[in-house]
Amino acid sequence: MKKDVILTGDRPTGPLHLGHYVGSLIKRVELQDQYKTFIMIADVQALTDYFDRPEKVHESVFEVALDYLAVGIDPQKATIFIQSEIPQIFELTVYYMNLVTLSRALRNPTVKNEIREKKLDETVGFVAYPISQAADITAFKGTLVPVGEDQFPVVEQTNEIVRTFNRIYQTDVLIEPKVVVSHTKRLPGLDGKAKMSKSLGNAIFLCDDADTIKKKVMGMFTDPDHVRVEDPGKIEGNMVFTYLDAFDPDKAEVEKLKAHYQKGGLGDVVVKKRLIEVLESFLKPIRERRAEFAKDKEQVMQILKEGTEKARSVAAQTLSEVKKAMKLHYF
Amino acid sequence: MKKDVILTGDRPTGPLHLGHYVGSLIKRVELQDQYKTFIMIADVQALTDYFDRPEKVHESVFEVALDYLAVGIDPQKATIFIQSEIPQIFELTVYYMNLVTLSRALRNPTVKNEIREKKLDETVGFVAYPISQAADITAFKGTLVPVGEDQFPVVEQTNEIVRTFNRIYQTDVLIEPKVVVSHTKRLPGLDGKAKMSKSLGNAIFLCDDADTIKKKVMGMFTDPDHVRVEDPGKIEGNMVFTYLDAFDPDKAEVEKLKAHYQKGGLGDVVVKKRLIEVLESFLKPIRERRAEFAKDKEQVMQILKEGTEKARSVAAQTLSEVKKAMKLHYF
Repeated sequence: MKKDVILTGDRPTGPLHLGHYVGSLIKRVELQDQYKTFIMIADVQALTDYFDRPEKVHESVFEVALDYLAVGIDPQKATIFIQSEIPQIFELTVYYMNLVTLSRALRNPTVKNEIREKKLDETVGFVAYPISQAADITAFKGTLVPVGEDQFPVVEQTNEIVRTFNRIYQTDVLIEPKVVVSHTKRLPGLDGKAKMSKSLGNAIFLCDDADTIKKKVMGMFTDPDHVRVEDPGKIEGNMVFTYLDAFDPDKAEVEKLKAHYQKGGLGDVVVKKRLIEVLESFLKPIRERRAEFAKDKEQVMQILKEGTEKARSVAAQTLSEVKKAMKLHYF
Repeated sequence: MKKDVILTGDRPTGPLHLGHYVGSLIKRVELQDQYKTFIMIADVQALTDYFDRPEKVHESVFEVALDYLAVGIDPQKATIFIQSEIPQIFELTVYYMNLVTLSRALRNPTVKNEIREKKLDETVGFVAYPISQAADITAFKGTLVPVGEDQFPVVEQTNEIVRTFNRIYQTDVLIEPKVVVSHTKRLPGLDGKAKMSKSLGNAIFLCDDADTIKKKVMGMFTDPDHVRVEDPGKIEGNMVFTYLDAFDPDKAEVEKLKAHYQKGGLGDVVVKKRLIEVLESFLKPIRERRAEFAKDKEQVMQILKEGTEKARSVAAQTLSEVKKAMKLHYF
């Protein structure tokens, strides 16, 4: 019997990319065997930024579901669901908003940065997003949250809310989750400038075809000082080697290539061709499974529907306990 | 066929008092004949301030329901419901939070004052309360909101949200409500210092018994300079006359008393005795109807249950239209 409960998810703002894979998908495929796993397609959270592009969010829900199935998330083991279909999350969000002061909400590092940049022009929804994530996690009584280091503050905020709620209402219905570090660093983008992200246009998507992968890798950032083949080249900050480290199963061969490159005499094109092969053999089965699922949209939607119904019944049970603790039950 | 839709309500933090009556109850009893009326017992809104006193809120829901029925709200004409039982309101609140910037939310006069006083120690829930009121109103497609002058900003915020929503999602599902002024001034408390309020301890409750009314009126603030009966007395700021103006049906007699009091020779006790009679004959039938309803708690809860179910189905219809406009529909 699986004891621990995991909640993870993604904002559907386009198909998933290699950054998501290294960041969390690979971990989730592992974890679904050990833990009761809920995977949320966070369409409402996506609307925090995409409030004026609802069409894009709508389409991306299906894309993300395809990506999940393609990488090996198994609906028999993990519950995939759509956030907007779980009204209990929003009700919990509203209740939790009474337990968090504005000053506390503004201390969240992401919120703080954005508010500093945009002054007070950020929306109330954005300021409250760590509170809504506490609602996501606690709705399913998540005990473990797989996050990157940059997401620790979300779990901290959740735990503060849980402690405050349980103290005020003298209950133990809410559970403090623990962090499972799913990745220590994020995969940088093709340009090496920042983490891989759709909006920065520096991503390789799980659904990219062979030609696209080839073009993207050929345009990758390497070592700008490595002009002639015979020159010694740098490994650090060289995206081709960063990606080989992440995806090439033959670690020994990668080390040999690195040494050669640093010494001089190894051209970028040769290394890039290897990376293209490595990525293609990694992505090909994913792409094929994805295409297979894409043929039967009805089946995918049925998987989402069943997952959503299951998730809703779990969240409804939590909400009912929460409301009893708050004396919000009358009939 | 009633065309316009009205939403009003109260926070259940104790039984209702004469301030509520003059402020809005009297108007509602009138309006229920002309308009489709929804009356919300706002238990979740009450928790914004009473988050640590859920028991008090819980008990007060029943008290407020009794007050409504006692003053003549007719469940055949008006739909009385409990806010926490309408999950659609919370979902709408979360969606609307993406449409309001923090700077806009902080411009609401009530929020602004509180934030100035308590710095940023107010909760996110408090900052978002005008947004949640927009959710209350629009959930029922309210076209008219009976408010006092101090509540205009709520309707302004609602209309901004409605316009933003309809523009962004290219729809007309949400409706801008208009204000119906239900009262121009609020009834001051017994002490004459501020509006009547339970928390200030200066209220006469609709359920107060004859002895309590007597004691409260005898302790009312009159004219502190009116020491001897033969002295001339002041009418302005004299609560006994303020209340006679509000509740004594014999306006001519009140004018005569005022003249006499101003000239001198009329003692406070005489005027207070008249007010006691006036209030007692006004409150007695209310108190008796209240006692009658209180005997059958089951019947009152049944009225609330039916009202709540009706309200929920209206809100569900609105939410479904809202989510279609936002492309949040999948199955």
